Amino acid sequence: MKLLFLSAEDRADPWREALAEELPELEFKLWPDDVGAPEDIDYALVWKPPAGELRNFPNLKAILSLGAGIDHLAADPELPTHIPTSRLVDRCLTQGMTEYVLYWVIHYHRHMNAYADMRVRHEWRHIPQVDPKRRRVGLLGLGELGSDAAEKLVALDYDVAGWSRTAKDIPGVTSFHGADGLAPFLARTDILVCLLPMTDQTRAIINKDNLAQLPEAAVFINCARGAHVVDDDLLAALDNGRLSAATLDVFHTEPLPADHPYWSHPNVVVTPHMASLTVAHSAAAYIADNIRRVERGELPLNTVDFQTGY
Amino acid sequence: MKLLFLSAEDRADPWREALAEELPELEFKLWPDDVGAPEDIDYALVWKPPAGELRNFPNLKAILSLGAGIDHLAADPELPTHIPTSRLVDRCLTQGMTEYVLYWVIHYHRHMNAYADMRVRHEWRHIPQVDPKRRRVGLLGLGELGSDAAEKLVALDYDVAGWSRTAKDIPGVTSFHGADGLAPFLARTDILVCLLPMTDQTRAIINKDNLAQLPEAAVFINCARGAHVVDDDLLAALDNGRLSAATLDVFHTEPLPADHPYWSHPNVVVTPHMASLTVAHSAAAYIADNIRRVERGELPLNTVDFQTGY
Repeated sequence: MKLLFLSAEDRADPWREALAEELPELEFKLWPDDVGAPEDIDYALVWKPPAGELRNFPNLKAILSLGAGIDHLAADPELPTHIPTSRLVDRCLTQGMTEYVLYWVIHYHRHMNAYADMRVRHEWRHIPQVDPKRRRVGLLGLGELGSDAAEKLVALDYDVAGWSRTAKDIPGVTSFHGADGLAPFLARTDILVCLLPMTDQTRAIINKDNLAQLPEAAVFINCARGAHVVDDDLLAALDNGRLSAATLDVFHTEPLPADHPYWSHPNVVVTPHMASLTVAHSAAAYIADNIRRVERGELPLNTVDFQTGY
Repeated sequence: MKLLFLSAEDRADPWREALAEELPELEFKLWPDDVGAPEDIDYALVWKPPAGELRNFPNLKAILSLGAGIDHLAADPELPTHIPTSRLVDRCLTQGMTEYVLYWVIHYHRHMNAYADMRVRHEWRHIPQVDPKRRRVGLLGLGELGSDAAEKLVALDYDVAGWSRTAKDIPGVTSFHGADGLAPFLARTDILVCLLPMTDQTRAIINKDNLAQLPEAAVFINCARGAHVVDDDLLAALDNGRLSAATLDVFHTEPLPADHPYWSHPNVVVTPHMASLTVAHSAAAYIADNIRRVERGELPLNTVDFQTGY
């Protein structure tokens, strides 16, 4: 039984070690230099494969994504669709994203940006603290990641709402859904967090018209995909005061080009698509579990529905 | 019924408004200019009163602290002790502290300091993410504030321990206590958070000997009191690598003098004693409740025991 590790971004060694502990009988092959005979590859563990590349492995039983998003696979018009593709759903991946969301929500809620500016000047001054019950956080997307972040924000007593394709029932979270629910959701949101999947319905959702629905001086945090955002519209909203600040982890082009205006905008924080990185020792257990399922003739967990796009 | 508001640091207006809503019959007097007849004052709502000042009000029924700590009162050798003194315990005060603790724990756990440095250079690079189960957070102090922070850290899956005077039973938190428990507690702590009350037993607890018990490159977060720390020992630990970083909210002298080495140390973050500020509209309900209790002949909630010091 052979697995091909195919990623230009992820380090293979932690995966090789972690999978060897989980499935000693699995042979670990490394793309592009140690593939061996293509017809011997049973599983592909992949991140952003070159278009058409997976066609070269005729006996694949399943495609296993190294990330929660599968837009990097859906973008391949030649992706084998007669076999299941599985999203990564992992404790550490979810927890990492929740950490990132909590960190930036608290950052803006508690004016940590202003305190950092004061620190440079050795200035000692208080900014009045706002009751978290009076801070309206809005999550675009209430899937695995959005719902975990929502629960933790509720536990911290923020006024939390979420928007998703279909209505969701999460204790303490006001649910908005569908096209009609978007404007009222945005109108009550001080801190907007994007955790949507990338689909034809969500592409460019952060545009001029939707940004105009937010209250004055709102904050935007994007930890989903760069293509959710119309960059010129976001920059205009920052410059006209509709948005007071943004933290962006994802971009149309990654790495973000060194001369992109986001890097030096005074009210933008750029992070290098690190909101949640895959932790091999944790995620390997999930991958091994999915391989065992396929070997038993079952579908892997979190098989992608390419109709909804996630 | 008259209440004297006595603080050189807190804004009186939000308190005047919030208490008028809670207790319309209460007359709000403002120290030092609008005290009126000292013998008419029933309650003193105070932060850092000048030593001896409270002796001037012979008919006080209770002293109500504007903060969770009462070292600012215990320091007054002439403090009236025949009437109860009450600590402030308030939802917003607790939540604010928990926000601060979570923010800085995540900051160091997720290398946000290194990412901020990269941002200045427009550099795009990942730092491997650590499973929160493998990050050992240690809380000095498990009172109202410490136990709430501990619970929220447990919910985020950190490996959490606490040290306190007496053993505590908080689900998911390893409890250490007493003098013998301190060294083993420190030895297992990567991120140390101080939330202790200031007493003769806790003064200068962050000293050379105790810092030497920590693992190499630990992190220290102080949101208790400056006097918990021996500054020279802390600076030495930062310079010899025992500590990799510190976030300090409290200091021996506040405001921290503009030329203090903490301000410009590359591995120290200074915040201006803002970890948790009192939110008047929330805390006023607690103060009003305590006044009603005393009027009914009961002790106020959270009456200070000056033997234990909290």
